[in-house]
Amino acid sequence: MPKPIHYADASAEVRAVFDDIKATRGVPDVNNFWKYLAHDPVTLARTWESVKQVMTPGALDARTKEMIYLAVSVTNGCEYCIASHGAAARKAGMSEAMFGELMAVVGMANETNSLANGYRVPVDAAFEW
Amino acid sequence: MPKPIHYADASAEVRAVFDDIKATRGVPDVNNFWKYLAHDPVTLARTWESVKQVMTPGALDARTKEMIYLAVSVTNGCEYCIASHGAAARKAGMSEAMFGELMAVVGMANETNSLANGYRVPVDAAFEW
Amino acid sequence: MPKPIHYADASAEVRAVFDDIKATRGVPDVNNFWKYLAHDPVTLARTWESVKQVMTPGALDARTKEMIYLAVSVTNGCEYCIASHGAAARKAGMSEAMFGELMAVVGMANETNSLANGYRVPVDAAFEW
Amino acid sequence: MPKPIHYADASAEVRAVFDDIKATRGVPDVNNFWKYLAHDPVTLARTWESVKQVMTPGALDARTKEMIYLAVSVTNGCEYCIASHGAAARKAGMSEAMFGELMAVVGMANETNSLANGYRVPVDAAFEW
Amino acid sequence: MPKPIHYADASAEVRAVFDDIKATRGVPDVNNFWKYLAHDPVTLARTWESVKQVMTPGALDARTKEMIYLAVSVTNGCEYCIASHGAAARKAGMSEAMFGELMAVVGMANETNSLANGYRVPVDAAFEW
Amino acid sequence: MPKPIHYADASAEVRAVFDDIKATRGVPDVNNFWKYLAHDPVTLARTWESVKQVMTPGALDARTKEMIYLAVSVTNGCEYCIASHGAAARKAGMSEAMFGELMAVVGMANETNSLANGYRVPVDAAFEW
Repeated sequence: MPKPIHYADASAEVRAVFDDIKATRGVPDVNNFWKYLAHDPVTLARTWESVKQVMTPGALDARTKEMIYLAVSVTNGCEYCIASHGAAARKAGMSEAMFGELMAVVGMANETNSLANGYRVPVDAAFEW
Repeated sequence: MPKPIHYADASAEVRAVFDDIKATRGVPDVNNFWKYLAHDPVTLARTWESVKQVMTPGALDARTKEMIYLAVSVTNGCEYCIASHGAAARKAGMSEAMFGELMAVVGMANETNSLANGYRVPVDAAFEW
Repeated sequence: MPKPIHYADASAEVRAVFDDIKATRGVPDVNNFWKYLAHDPVTLARTWESVKQVMTPGALDARTKEMIYLAVSVTNGCEYCIASHGAAARKAGMSEAMFGELMAVVGMANETNSLANGYRVPVDAAFEW
Repeated sequence: MPKPIHYADASAEVRAVFDDIKATRGVPDVNNFWKYLAHDPVTLARTWESVKQVMTPGALDARTKEMIYLAVSVTNGCEYCIASHGAAARKAGMSEAMFGELMAVVGMANETNSLANGYRVPVDAAFEW
Repeated sequence: MPKPIHYADASAEVRAVFDDIKATRGVPDVNNFWKYLAHDPVTLARTWESVKQVMTPGALDARTKEMIYLAVSVTNGCEYCIASHGAAARKAGMSEAMFGELMAVVGMANETNSLANGYRVPVDAAFEW
Repeated sequence: MPKPIHYADASAEVRAVFDDIKATRGVPDVNNFWKYLAHDPVTLARTWESVKQVMTPGALDARTKEMIYLAVSVTNGCEYCIASHGAAARKAGMSEAMFGELMAVVGMANETNSLANGYRVPVDAAFEW
């Protein structure tokens, strides 16, 4: 399987992306996700540009965006993403109390999603505006 | 398949839950989800008590909670839940600009979740505190 | 998209499978699932042979097997499968009270699955025998 | 990430839930799931009350309920839940032959769920009663 | 819920993306997916640029890429995506025989994925190179 | 949990399947998946016969089939299947450039699947032929 590509071994193209990640986030090194994506410099560059655009605060602040990212990752059971975005959300200000409430909502949503599907509940006319 | 149970046809036990939902939410009738769950009064009562507890504002405000609920529902592709919690999130203050950013984050999270899985990226030591 | 292939229009190869389904289940016609799979006679035959083998009562009775099938279908949110295996489970003896309890378990399992993932709970040594 | 909270370090509120789990199940200690949920005593208490209510034998016996729980967990690929509910189902009487048949049904359901989706099979009128 | 934004009602920013989609694909109008994404011009533009880059033939030809897209959409049970990428794959040369074999592989993969998870099969050393 | 059943400890029934896998694939031993399935000889034999039929080159070549298998496994986040079918796809001729493009398509598909669901995009009439 692919191995991580470290900065010292990276091409100029990959280093340029790594440099931008480090500068944007103020971190000394990129995390493993980017070191693996580096096997495909085109996907690496596109994914980083997309993440940077999507995660920049706008109508939603950075913390809310990271919590939404985490909620999706938990629902998908993606261990790497739960760990990395759990860390990112905490860095963006998510307290442990907020994490607990986020998890409670995620758990409840997964439960009621399956209840709605299993009972084959039709969408209310009031929700179709 | 199960059919909705309307207030007029509901048992006293079910009516008590319906009444509490209507009073808590300030709505004239409950939405279809509850009318279908009414086939199982025990699950109806437990689910409502859980939803009420989980969705009450705490460390997270109501709008953030509804947006997390929506993000999970979109990830699971639960049409009923997308419609109902999309409506609830808007009622709680989610603007269309916020919805757009929420969807952008949800889409990006689903993409990078699959990238992290496919490249089998190991969790960074820095995320294991 | 593919359209259903009805008995009158089916090849001898497809008719042979349809005949076996009808005889095994004691039904006058096959349901839509088989009429669509008929576009690929090899997959049709293999799937029917597999379903027949898997769903025959053994250590588990027919009703339990259909309820497990339904639980998976609800979790996946597959509407066709929820409808068809909901009907099959009821035909095999699942009462509405049993359906209600099945749904309560399915909902709880989906909730706690996401809680276990989100809290990154490690497997207890006691479960590794 | 969160660490387990052991009985010795737990608050009175958490200990009360742990005590009830131990008494109800007749076990000397709670499993990791509860030790992690203990970070959020409200979710801990609610989840335990829900699990206790849902898993109590009723129209379905304990073994069938645990097997349904396991089928959902396998479908979601939740490793912790597969291990813990695999153990619970065996404790409730699931033999290895039953486990084999359960897995065969779960596998077949996941296969035919995707076939029904991919062929876009419409629900038969006969299933809409 | 959001409604489609048609060319006649679109902003100059959205029209520019629509024009590029139509020119690139040689179609008289864009499909619904883009008309809904048009509510968020930033996501619209980014998604189109990403799709264009990713789906351009490279080491893999267009037909193979569309079939992979379809396989993912079937696995996720996304009806819109199954319909749209089913059409796109056929336009790119997927025959009905190829579709049948694709579906057989997708079904089998979903089945064995759940079997591997349920039996908790550890990765072979031979696969870790 | 189940342990692997090695050739030396296997029944004649299981050995016959193992022998056919080894002969068909030209490998000295079967991989772990089969050693775990060996706990249920009926499922072992059926699954192997199905996989053999489905993966034989037909309208689609072996490499394309393995890449579709891999795309599904990545989407489901099945680690064992990602490792084993990643190896199988490479053995069948998937280059690292092809893997990169496959992953880019899988990521994009998972992103746009969630966008289509979240915006509740209706299927275009043009896709319903």
